[in-house]
Amino acid sequence: MKGNDAVGFSALAATAAIVGFSAVASEHADGNGAPIFLSEIPQGYRDWQLIAVSRLIRGDGSSQLRAELGNDVAIKAYHEGKLPFPDGAIIAALHWNEVSSEDNNHVLAKGFPGAGIQSFVPGLGVNMQFMAKDSKKYAATGGWGFGDFTNGKPSAEKLMQTCFACHQPAKDHDFVFTRYAP
Amino acid sequence: MKGNDAVGFSALAATAAIVGFSAVASEHADGNGAPIFLSEIPQGYRDWQLIAVSRLIRGDGSSQLRAELGNDVAIKAYHEGKLPFPDGAIIAALHWNEVSSEDNNHVLAKGFPGAGIQSFVPGLGVNMQFMAKDSKKYAATGGWGFGDFTNGKPSAEKLMQTCFACHQPAKDHDFVFTRYAP
Repeated sequence: MKGNDAVGFSALAATAAIVGFSAVASEHADGNGAPIFLSEIPQGYRDWQLIAVSRLIRGDGSSQLRAELGNDVAIKAYHEGKLPFPDGAIIAALHWNEVSSEDNNHVLAKGFPGAGIQSFVPGLGVNMQFMAKDSKKYAATGGWGFGDFTNGKPSAEKLMQTCFACHQPAKDHDFVFTRYAP
Repeated sequence: MKGNDAVGFSALAATAAIVGFSAVASEHADGNGAPIFLSEIPQGYRDWQLIAVSRLIRGDGSSQLRAELGNDVAIKAYHEGKLPFPDGAIIAALHWNEVSSEDNNHVLAKGFPGAGIQSFVPGLGVNMQFMAKDSKKYAATGGWGFGDFTNGKPSAEKLMQTCFACHQPAKDHDFVFTRYAP
């Protein structure tokens, strides 16, 4: 049993499929034998700079807090408005279950009674997703290698087909949905 | 008229007061003539590393997406579990209005009809808040200098009294509420 089973891993996995980003098993070969999905989590991703934050309400009404980070190559491209992203750019999307912060709410309720303010913070991590740019290696998927990891391990192969297709509508922004938050 | 007036600056300012973090005018003097609030936005804050994300539902039901960032000194202290934070640590809290992403929702609805998934992204910035540690300079407020900025300018002096008082319940964590998100 994986650690996430205790908090509804099945539902989370289903949502991961629903939201349509990539899932990854080990390296998969395209017609030329080249890997088209990420099989390992890029090193140092947690120290990368912030691109933006976001939130996703899932089909069951639960909510995820999300942060999108970029490595130096990706951040430089964002700052310069450079498209397509150059080879070497990697974008990380970290997804947590959103949980109510009882500690924060206690403070807020005490200091400002009746104001109805509610604070939410990251709970357990759900999954992490990556897009790594290598225009030759990942030519078949817009130059991006997609990856989805849960508990540090690449997700099931059955999800991997959805990654690139779902990013197609963002083609004019090199298949990247996230914009830099000011 | 400030730029934010068009999107309800008054309500935002009121909320800033309600949530009880600091507001800042120019430098204020304590009994020794030392400044006790930040009068300028720390340089380079947007490139700092991510501590966590959060969300705040305000009294009017509207929602803010938030990111807490730390400079190198603050991040190192988080990683080492070092308390109190050493002098030089600065924590930034960036607050945006949460807005529905029609673009993302269009993709999600098309790819996964009926799933009821909703995407939210940062809209206009509301305000930015900072805590800067200098145990001597800001001795009167737990060693922290607080700052609140809207449209790049320090907020009204009337709010500044609430900063430290509201952080008191987090005294066991050196007056810092935000925990590092894994």
